[in-house]
Amino acid sequence: MKIVIVGGGAAGATAAQFARKQCRDAEIIVFEKDTYPEYSRCGMPHAISGEIPSFADLVEFSEGWFEMNRIDLRLSTEVLAIDASIKKIESGGPSGASSESYDALIFATGALPSMPRVEGIQSGGKLREGAFIFRSMDDAKALMGWCEASERKVLVVGAGLIGLEVADALNHKGHKVVVVEYLDAILPAMIDPDISEPVASAAREVGIELITSSYVDAVTGDGAITGAKISSRKDSDSRILQCDTLVMATGQKPSTELAGMSGCMLGNQGHIKVDDRCETTLKGIFAVGDCSEYRDMMTGESSPVGLGTLAVKMGEVAGKNAAGGNDRLQKGFLNSRVTRLFGLEIAATGPLASSLSKCGMKVVQSRIKGSTLPLYFPGGDELLVKLTSSEDGSLLSCQIVGKKEAALRIDIVSSLMAAGKGAKDLAQLENAYAPSVAPCVDVLAAAAQGILIKIERKGKG
Amino acid sequence: MKIVIVGGGAAGATAAQFARKQCRDAEIIVFEKDTYPEYSRCGMPHAISGEIPSFADLVEFSEGWFEMNRIDLRLSTEVLAIDASIKKIESGGPSGASSESYDALIFATGALPSMPRVEGIQSGGKLREGAFIFRSMDDAKALMGWCEASERKVLVVGAGLIGLEVADALNHKGHKVVVVEYLDAILPAMIDPDISEPVASAAREVGIELITSSYVDAVTGDGAITGAKISSRKDSDSRILQCDTLVMATGQKPSTELAGMSGCMLGNQGHIKVDDRCETTLKGIFAVGDCSEYRDMMTGESSPVGLGTLAVKMGEVAGKNAAGGNDRLQKGFLNSRVTRLFGLEIAATGPLASSLSKCGMKVVQSRIKGSTLPLYFPGGDELLVKLTSSEDGSLLSCQIVGKKEAALRIDIVSSLMAAGKGAKDLAQLENAYAPSVAPCVDVLAAAAQGILIKIERKGKG
Repeated sequence: MKIVIVGGGAAGATAAQFARKQCRDAEIIVFEKDTYPEYSRCGMPHAISGEIPSFADLVEFSEGWFEMNRIDLRLSTEVLAIDASIKKIESGGPSGASSESYDALIFATGALPSMPRVEGIQSGGKLREGAFIFRSMDDAKALMGWCEASERKVLVVGAGLIGLEVADALNHKGHKVVVVEYLDAILPAMIDPDISEPVASAAREVGIELITSSYVDAVTGDGAITGAKISSRKDSDSRILQCDTLVMATGQKPSTELAGMSGCMLGNQGHIKVDDRCETTLKGIFAVGDCSEYRDMMTGESSPVGLGTLAVKMGEVAGKNAAGGNDRLQKGFLNSRVTRLFGLEIAATGPLASSLSKCGMKVVQSRIKGSTLPLYFPGGDELLVKLTSSEDGSLLSCQIVGKKEAALRIDIVSSLMAAGKGAKDLAQLENAYAPSVAPCVDVLAAAAQGILIKIERKGKG
Repeated sequence: MKIVIVGGGAAGATAAQFARKQCRDAEIIVFEKDTYPEYSRCGMPHAISGEIPSFADLVEFSEGWFEMNRIDLRLSTEVLAIDASIKKIESGGPSGASSESYDALIFATGALPSMPRVEGIQSGGKLREGAFIFRSMDDAKALMGWCEASERKVLVVGAGLIGLEVADALNHKGHKVVVVEYLDAILPAMIDPDISEPVASAAREVGIELITSSYVDAVTGDGAITGAKISSRKDSDSRILQCDTLVMATGQKPSTELAGMSGCMLGNQGHIKVDDRCETTLKGIFAVGDCSEYRDMMTGESSPVGLGTLAVKMGEVAGKNAAGGNDRLQKGFLNSRVTRLFGLEIAATGPLASSLSKCGMKVVQSRIKGSTLPLYFPGGDELLVKLTSSEDGSLLSCQIVGKKEAALRIDIVSSLMAAGKGAKDLAQLENAYAPSVAPCVDVLAAAAQGILIKIERKGKG
């Protein structure tokens, strides 16, 4: 039994781990383009902010771990070609070209930054001095080195999760930070616009300038960057913003050329399609993590995988199955997600309102404020909750913003969503209560009650 | 429609609130022995510690609230007799004796401290100077006044929730505190003995002396208390401990003489039996809160109600039903509970191991340690988790101890328990993950995985 894994990130390394658990004597090879063994990409902004003392701390599966588990980790090695018909894989690395046969193959090729056209951002085929992307450890180290050399005027392009996490970290280190977002609201892939307002306020409060509905179409400067042209998407206004640092955080595209050429079916955004065994449309070839797409539990639609938790879940299933097991994913993903930005915890589970609407789903929404503690107990923090159900009360999504305890409340809702439960079940939540810990009636139960009242009124109306 | 409610605590006041919501023109009378409108008993230790600035802050339903809702709150008024056959209730209060007819009656009579025999604790029919109980606001105020007058040597009898919360508060205020517990472990009604050890360590670390397997059978002193005789339950050893303050926190007994005399069926510990409409065995008579008992969702056995959250849930159902509605409790209670003691959050849901064993239930247990954050992120706090399932994997109980975030994790488990789900569902928890907020694989999922492995091994063994 010989298993080859293309990509040694969270998804690939976890696949290797569980392939080894499943089969003690399988031969396992992991090909990784990067020079580092598996590390936490999600932790990189915190290495820049200084919360995590060193980039080296981000490594979760060390080279020693791979060795101990008898997994052949080939760093700095690129896979050049795959012939699925004869189960052969060609690669090039520090010790030259190599060809391996395999019994099972796992694509864990991740994603690459997706960049809109920005005039002048490249010089001689490389990013101009002062321009950065933020996907790999080397990207993060380069940005950090640049910013440590001097106090910077930073323009972050894209107010998604990564853009804002980098903005928060650099602002925290004393740099002047402006963020430009193409859409009308920040965190557009994470939360609905009506929930993003307190996050935008918090960003402004810590001194970050946000410019929405706008884009950067050119950078200025002969050598290093000296400014960027920011244009409004709503009118023809544009202006030059002086800056010496540009961070492109404009999303990502799946890295799936090899899979496509091997004959795996790709989705309409280029992600590899997999079934609940993480198997692609080619038998014996699996795909996991950011390069793949899988069913959204709530809409039933195939949806790009973009979370570390899901990469790990898929890695487990694909690793076991590649090694002869028969494990299955749950029936879909909820895409539970959280970040901490500008002193706020922002957490969500289930599809955005726009996705539900695109699927033609009719929904009932409840949007309320509550507190982490009873009103009479000093020190409670406000929680803003938006809960969405179908018209029959089945829970579909939840988004929470507060200083703390948003993520664990999302986990309560997602547990009920995965169990197929509804607003009535959440309204009856028997939460653990003590004045110094949590209120007697949790804000989640109150939000669910709000849904039930709306449904009852609709029934009567 | 005329509704009388006996007792104006959390259960009774909530019943009044929902009776009013259900029926705009019902006549509603609440009889309350105490001189205060509804207040949070659970908050009282925090008023003693100073976390809550004033006892007045504990009032949740003020006299003004009752007035605004046209509810006739009769404070300092004792119900003397009820004749259920002719639906009449006799009471005595500040304005003399009174007799009222009713259509529906709700018992919300709560509980009273249960005291073992302690020689010399009473003098002239009253507690001796320096001896206290801790049930009502006046009890708490008296203890606080006594302790503010001087630095005290306090002996707390009973290491249950109330005993330890009072001990923590008084220790925090600088008094010397010793706690004596009859059983072998602290918090015996809240968590299993094998989970209580870190709590006991934390108590000792903040300077509280704990003496388990022992009891107080006499107090010394001619006028005020000067000491207490502490005897071991395991051998004949006894000793006199010098103290000037004795707090009896030895549990409670339901206050159900009136209900019993009215003809309501009582359980074997004297609690009023109710169905899922909160109705007693007498039609039109309801009971809610600490005076009642209701089904335990996991064992199916009738079980005393002793939590504020449940009092409020029952109050809602009974209030609506007494006013002509038809609401129902969920199929049983999980008794989700939490406290914060000595810097730790201690939370649990579902029956104790001893209760499950008494019911003849065979269980599988997983006991592991995890962290609130990924290993590579500084500042994570340890969480000790004990998860219990039936032999087929259905979740039965969970107990967690950690510095924080124990209660919300208990709420995740209790949501799945209420949904009838098992360890497999918890193992698949799609938790919201970000390095600064929560680990990629939560300790709950790891604990559930532990259960699944044990069950699989048993199946093979």
